[in-house]
Amino acid sequence: MQTSGVITITTDFGHKGPFTGVMKGVILGRFPAARIVDLTHDIPAQWPPEAGFWVARSYRYFPPGSVHLAIVDPGVGTEREILIVEYDGHCFIAPDNGLLGPLLAAADDARVFHLGADVVRGLGIESPSSTFHGRDIFAPVAAEIASGRLTAGDLGRPAADWVPGWLDPPAVGDGRVNGIVVTVDTFGNLISDIDSSMIASFNEPVAHIAGHQIGMRTTYGRATPGDYLALINSFGVVEVARAEGNAAEGLSSDRGAPITVTDGYSA
Amino acid sequence: MQTSGVITITTDFGHKGPFTGVMKGVILGRFPAARIVDLTHDIPAQWPPEAGFWVARSYRYFPPGSVHLAIVDPGVGTEREILIVEYDGHCFIAPDNGLLGPLLAAADDARVFHLGADVVRGLGIESPSSTFHGRDIFAPVAAEIASGRLTAGDLGRPAADWVPGWLDPPAVGDGRVNGIVVTVDTFGNLISDIDSSMIASFNEPVAHIAGHQIGMRTTYGRATPGDYLALINSFGVVEVARAEGNAAEGLSSDRGAPITVTDGYSA
Amino acid sequence: MQTSGVITITTDFGHKGPFTGVMKGVILGRFPAARIVDLTHDIPAQWPPEAGFWVARSYRYFPPGSVHLAIVDPGVGTEREILIVEYDGHCFIAPDNGLLGPLLAAADDARVFHLGADVVRGLGIESPSSTFHGRDIFAPVAAEIASGRLTAGDLGRPAADWVPGWLDPPAVGDGRVNGIVVTVDTFGNLISDIDSSMIASFNEPVAHIAGHQIGMRTTYGRATPGDYLALINSFGVVEVARAEGNAAEGLSSDRGAPITVTDGYSA
Repeated sequence: MQTSGVITITTDFGHKGPFTGVMKGVILGRFPAARIVDLTHDIPAQWPPEAGFWVARSYRYFPPGSVHLAIVDPGVGTEREILIVEYDGHCFIAPDNGLLGPLLAAADDARVFHLGADVVRGLGIESPSSTFHGRDIFAPVAAEIASGRLTAGDLGRPAADWVPGWLDPPAVGDGRVNGIVVTVDTFGNLISDIDSSMIASFNEPVAHIAGHQIGMRTTYGRATPGDYLALINSFGVVEVARAEGNAAEGLSSDRGAPITVTDGYSA
Repeated sequence: MQTSGVITITTDFGHKGPFTGVMKGVILGRFPAARIVDLTHDIPAQWPPEAGFWVARSYRYFPPGSVHLAIVDPGVGTEREILIVEYDGHCFIAPDNGLLGPLLAAADDARVFHLGADVVRGLGIESPSSTFHGRDIFAPVAAEIASGRLTAGDLGRPAADWVPGWLDPPAVGDGRVNGIVVTVDTFGNLISDIDSSMIASFNEPVAHIAGHQIGMRTTYGRATPGDYLALINSFGVVEVARAEGNAAEGLSSDRGAPITVTDGYSA
Repeated sequence: MQTSGVITITTDFGHKGPFTGVMKGVILGRFPAARIVDLTHDIPAQWPPEAGFWVARSYRYFPPGSVHLAIVDPGVGTEREILIVEYDGHCFIAPDNGLLGPLLAAADDARVFHLGADVVRGLGIESPSSTFHGRDIFAPVAAEIASGRLTAGDLGRPAADWVPGWLDPPAVGDGRVNGIVVTVDTFGNLISDIDSSMIASFNEPVAHIAGHQIGMRTTYGRATPGDYLALINSFGVVEVARAEGNAAEGLSSDRGAPITVTDGYSA
């Protein structure tokens, strides 16, 4: 993999305290030319599926050879492995806790490694803290890979299995797909895990959520203010929005809400 | 325009989700040496005037030749143009929805262009999403300009008119200026659109807001804790603050509140 | 001091408005190769001790020769000095208001300077605003030092004394240390000012907070969900957490709460 020098960081650390800042310091100490991009630090605390969803849906907008670091880690300080994945010309580093499930579910030819404990010591990381692997392990490993000094294969051993994703993939039936709302954006748009490919054959796709039936449109723009609308969003999944309004508030729906798309309206 | 390689980004995307992150990824893919600065992503949802206010008041603190990208866009997905403006040695890119009104109102010699749809295709942007022009159109255009490969004139056609700003400029009368609160900062300071030049001739400027009359001072520091004070802030506009307190809370005032400055106290 | 080109910024400016953005613009104008890292901008408004705590505990994770700018400044616009400190191969710039107390308390060989007003003029800063020294004074000074053009000694005069830190250091007694909660992170972990060295001799350290006695552990991971736990965190201080929960909420404790560590449980 030819590296781009770009490292993205996705966490649930929020913005209080120096937590992502010191990770960047560690990266710059090992790889001064790193260009570091925050993907988001507002993943709900200790809920890996949203991090995995966004990493899987976002990485392709970065230059090939980028390193994507994602840390949402209920198990920090306990025994859990660290995954390094090479896929589609990018590298992904995350705790082996299901976070990368959304990526690996669709990545048959991914090369998956478990970070070796001996390798960590070889990087000069002598006594990593038990509670901040982001700074003490993930950041140095990302810097070494992004700098091109070491590869995923140098740092890990091939992994035969790993913790699966937390969410079942949507159930695809005859003229019906059952998914869930994975995340809600700043505007209150409800973003689901139903990929456009799952409803590509539908003649008249209709989203069902919170007792509403909402016909799919192609853009936010062609609706009367206050109307709910469903569309394939810019990341290729079904999203429910409200024209000039907040769908999450209007529908009293949030992350985790069930959402179904059918071919045609129900009686 | 000699480019500086600096790109600023102003949006209402907030910090949840990867929205500004992927814009940066697209920029770095086209222009690896870009230095990207977040101006703010906490503009109130779909309210362009605050974005335009801050861009117009902030750009001059960046190196000449910087590119300023601002996206607060109630009309994304509908028919609306995209503006590219060259002014005062900087370049500005925004939806043509009034966002750049505060800049253009004072910019007689600005060169204003509408982005050409054919040019977008020429950039290799084959099927931009209808709902995330920030990533699919604005970011590539900003990267091409900031890299120096293309100019505003290469990318757009001269614009004869554009959507005006959302807010009327302050009404300047005899010894009286009527403006509004454009934004409130983290400290609760109420920041108006009344420029210092509008009250430069006043002997005893007094701000009127929420039933209070507040004499203008020159600094936060010379007040008793709890006192309200009005001053010309560091961006050249009238601001109402509360010494060691929060003026917005204390005065129950917020964005949009009317504020007047008179020459002398009223009876 | 050999500079690294890295500048960190710590403020209480939050994320609304362009305040840190324009500081970065000023830095890049003077030092285009600067690599700027946000440490945090969510320090509680006008409360310097938390900023000083994090700067003192974080700087060592950045490359030697980094410049650390911290601005939490209740006194902006009044007469107060600006400190420039060289210590442990790093440079620190902050208002002389006690912010750097946590650093200077443990820094016997620090070289401490007061920024000279004449020097500011020599930098071409002709009329700094009275209310935004971050942009008009701190940012240019940081850029000049980080670029290697000027040193702390060039810019300031040796300081004989300075404003002490706002918080008394923990009271260390026989088998007992009394400290306070300095900050709470996104997860609700209560982070104290009690350094691990203060309890290193304890056989059975027990944290006391909000009427609870909590035995010290070594990691978050070895606890039953809902249990409170106390540990030395990754920044070397005593922290109280709740397994898969939020300690601050559960204990109704916040910044400023007293916390004591004893050697052994109390009756």
